[in-house]
Amino acid sequence: MSADAVTVEVGLGTRSYDILIGPGLIGRAGEEIARRLPGIRAAIVSDENVAAHHLGALSESLSRSGIESTSIMLPAGEKTKNFDALQQVVDGILAARLERGDAVIALGGGVIGDLAGFAAGIVRRGMNFVQMPTSLLAQVDSSVGGKTGINTAHGKNLVGVFHQPRLVLADTGALDTLPAREFRAGYAEVAKYGLIDRPDFFAWLEKNWQEVFDGGPARTEAIAQSCSAKAEVVARDEFETGDRALLNLGHTFGHALEAATGYDGARLVHGEGVAIGMALAHRFSARLNLASHDDAARVEAHLTAVGLPWRMADIPGPLPDAERLLGYIAQDKKVSRGALTFILTHGVGQSFIARDVPASEVLSFLRENHPG
Amino acid sequence: MSADAVTVEVGLGTRSYDILIGPGLIGRAGEEIARRLPGIRAAIVSDENVAAHHLGALSESLSRSGIESTSIMLPAGEKTKNFDALQQVVDGILAARLERGDAVIALGGGVIGDLAGFAAGIVRRGMNFVQMPTSLLAQVDSSVGGKTGINTAHGKNLVGVFHQPRLVLADTGALDTLPAREFRAGYAEVAKYGLIDRPDFFAWLEKNWQEVFDGGPARTEAIAQSCSAKAEVVARDEFETGDRALLNLGHTFGHALEAATGYDGARLVHGEGVAIGMALAHRFSARLNLASHDDAARVEAHLTAVGLPWRMADIPGPLPDAERLLGYIAQDKKVSRGALTFILTHGVGQSFIARDVPASEVLSFLRENHPG
Ligand SMILES: NC(=O)c1ccc[n+]([C@@H]2O[C@H](COP(=O)([O-])OP(=O)(O)OC[C@H]3O[C@@H](n4cnc5c(N)ncnc54)[C@H](O)[C@@H]3O)[C@@H](O)[C@H]2O)c1
Ligand SMILES: NC(=O)c1ccc[n+]([C@@H]2O[C@H](COP(=O)([O-])OP(=O)(O)OC[C@H]3O[C@@H](n4cnc5c(N)ncnc54)[C@H](O)[C@@H]3O)[C@@H](O)[C@H]2O)c1
Ligand SMILES: [Zn+2]
Ligand SMILES: [Zn+2]
Repeated sequence: MSADAVTVEVGLGTRSYDILIGPGLIGRAGEEIARRLPGIRAAIVSDENVAAHHLGALSESLSRSGIESTSIMLPAGEKTKNFDALQQVVDGILAARLERGDAVIALGGGVIGDLAGFAAGIVRRGMNFVQMPTSLLAQVDSSVGGKTGINTAHGKNLVGVFHQPRLVLADTGALDTLPAREFRAGYAEVAKYGLIDRPDFFAWLEKNWQEVFDGGPARTEAIAQSCSAKAEVVARDEFETGDRALLNLGHTFGHALEAATGYDGARLVHGEGVAIGMALAHRFSARLNLASHDDAARVEAHLTAVGLPWRMADIPGPLPDAERLLGYIAQDKKVSRGALTFILTHGVGQSFIARDVPASEVLSFLRENHPG
Repeated sequence: MSADAVTVEVGLGTRSYDILIGPGLIGRAGEEIARRLPGIRAAIVSDENVAAHHLGALSESLSRSGIESTSIMLPAGEKTKNFDALQQVVDGILAARLERGDAVIALGGGVIGDLAGFAAGIVRRGMNFVQMPTSLLAQVDSSVGGKTGINTAHGKNLVGVFHQPRLVLADTGALDTLPAREFRAGYAEVAKYGLIDRPDFFAWLEKNWQEVFDGGPARTEAIAQSCSAKAEVVARDEFETGDRALLNLGHTFGHALEAATGYDGARLVHGEGVAIGMALAHRFSARLNLASHDDAARVEAHLTAVGLPWRMADIPGPLPDAERLLGYIAQDKKVSRGALTFILTHGVGQSFIARDVPASEVLSFLRENHPG
């Protein structure tokens, strides 16, 4: 089995850690964790969907390696990323009398990873944390880099800590039980890494995306490429004071659309918002004469091929008008002291941070592309 | 005014910061903050007791320096260090639309400092934070070193983050409005630094404690000595993986007594528990032939002189029996995997971390010293 696994290192000095990617990792999580964190006990945090498929295998693997564990179960879905659930996880960890050297294990998608990581970051001012991402989005994005957090009435992910995991185990086989729509949404983040600064990877995806969806070595390869792309940015800018903002390609428009649809997953899930956001970021860059319209068309074509939405018109139901969409953008946390910051691009794999983008330009662009 | 202020630096590389100590600092907080954090807005977190005396002066000083501020008010007392209050502070900061570069200012004792610091550490994954401690305990202990947190049903300070302030302003004049009992309790922590590893400072306190209580240069001097002692330990061990545990001198017994009295401040406040705990730690060390009984008597004499309790018998009301007190000690977070860890001493200013102290020795000692 181990022959199939690929390792990507996140280089953060004394806080460096490995990401293991491959099939069957849930079944041998016990050995991998016990080797790195000998003698610990653990609390597994998961949601009902994921637990139904994978919790049994994980608990057994842990106990085979002598790791006693307790599990803390939460309802699935973005709504779980709130203060009450945080308190519930913290309480579960403390009730199990875990100490600082013990581990919190997140088994689930980005919601569980963000929430469990936050809890691990604050119980006893920081416990060991292991990410076991089970959604594609979590495997390529949220489980890497140490950002954790919850949502509040004031916005998403506004409260949290930077708390790096000690180990990430991305079982690519776990993705077989992931709903197809969730897989596709996560794929938007995979494509994102190509669009940010890896044009060869984007070209490879244009050829091999079907195998990535089907599973097997191409899937592992795509996830490993994505993790290494993210790890590189994170190592350069752990606390997001500069470059890390590049990872927000597609997210300024995307977040605005998520907010505009009331975070209703039936209409738009995060990765779909990112897909539309990336297409818009390329088209907007072309409109500002920064990139070519051909590049924008190429991005749109690939999103179409994999079945992702790329236009605002692809979102079912009515959208607020352009003015109101701009309002959502201005509320986004990437707005610093009134200036609009966007990730724009000079073409596929050539994105950059643009500060002081005039709101008027954004508004006209939104008007032109508004379906209503 | 500035002639009276003493500066102590906490050396933590890029996160180093100054502690300014002296009278009148609330009145010139605006300049001191604006000089270091130009262009910011602020949220002041305080409690009703402190606000009644000092909030007006702080707000005016900030606004004179062009710092727009909002204030978030909480009930006074240890009970405020909970999840609900944390959420309230977080919410207040977000409602004021503060960004990462803006500041949370804690104006109050250790309760407000711990709570506001925790909130500052998690809003937007870490905002600027300024400590303005107004109790003696907060000026010499809780405001220095970056530990923040709240209490839960499972114990005190079990949840929080390390989040260093950008600046500490300890207005020694603010202590004039502090109830005498609170001042005395905070003084236990001052004496603690002498007992840990500064025998000359302890001797100086034996001579000058009355002036420290009265105010003036000796007070500033004692606070500065205390801050520099704490800063030294913190610089050596920011995340409490080793030496920082020395700061717990007197706290293992002290915490057990606080728990045993149900955290009822009418019976015992934290510093009083620490005073009794320090006396017990010295007497226990003498009993184990590690220190002399003369040293223990010297500590007891000084605590008596300043009016602090030093025996279990000094606590009004009945105490649980020795077995149950040991139970509280074993629950304390300084117990690692069943072994009892204590800060013991070879004499005044010669404390050390003792791991694997046999529970049976502790039990006989508690029995001998139990008033019941
Ligand atoms: N921390 C970061 O750096 C970061 C980065 C990007 C996104 N995020 C966060 O990640 C979250 C989105 O992550 P997500 O898309 O994984 O959401 P999610 O955790 O809600 O998972 C999506 C759905 O798939 C289910 N699921 C997950 N794995 C499964 C499996 N193997 N089999 C069956 N069902 C499975 C979940 O129960 C859920 O219903 C958002 O909250 C976002 O803010 C965080
Ligand atoms: N973070 C750390 O490293 C650390 C270290 C030691 C203690 N602590 C924490 O500190 C807390 C105890 O601190 P504390 O003793 O300051 O408690 P506190 O904040 O409750 O203050 C004590 C009382 O004095 C009042 N007060 C404070 N300043 C005043 C002033 N200038 N005038 C009038 N009244 C004033 C307060 O309203 C309160 O009623 C505990 O929660 C403890 O866990 C933290
Ligand atoms: Zn994303
Ligand atoms: Zn103390």
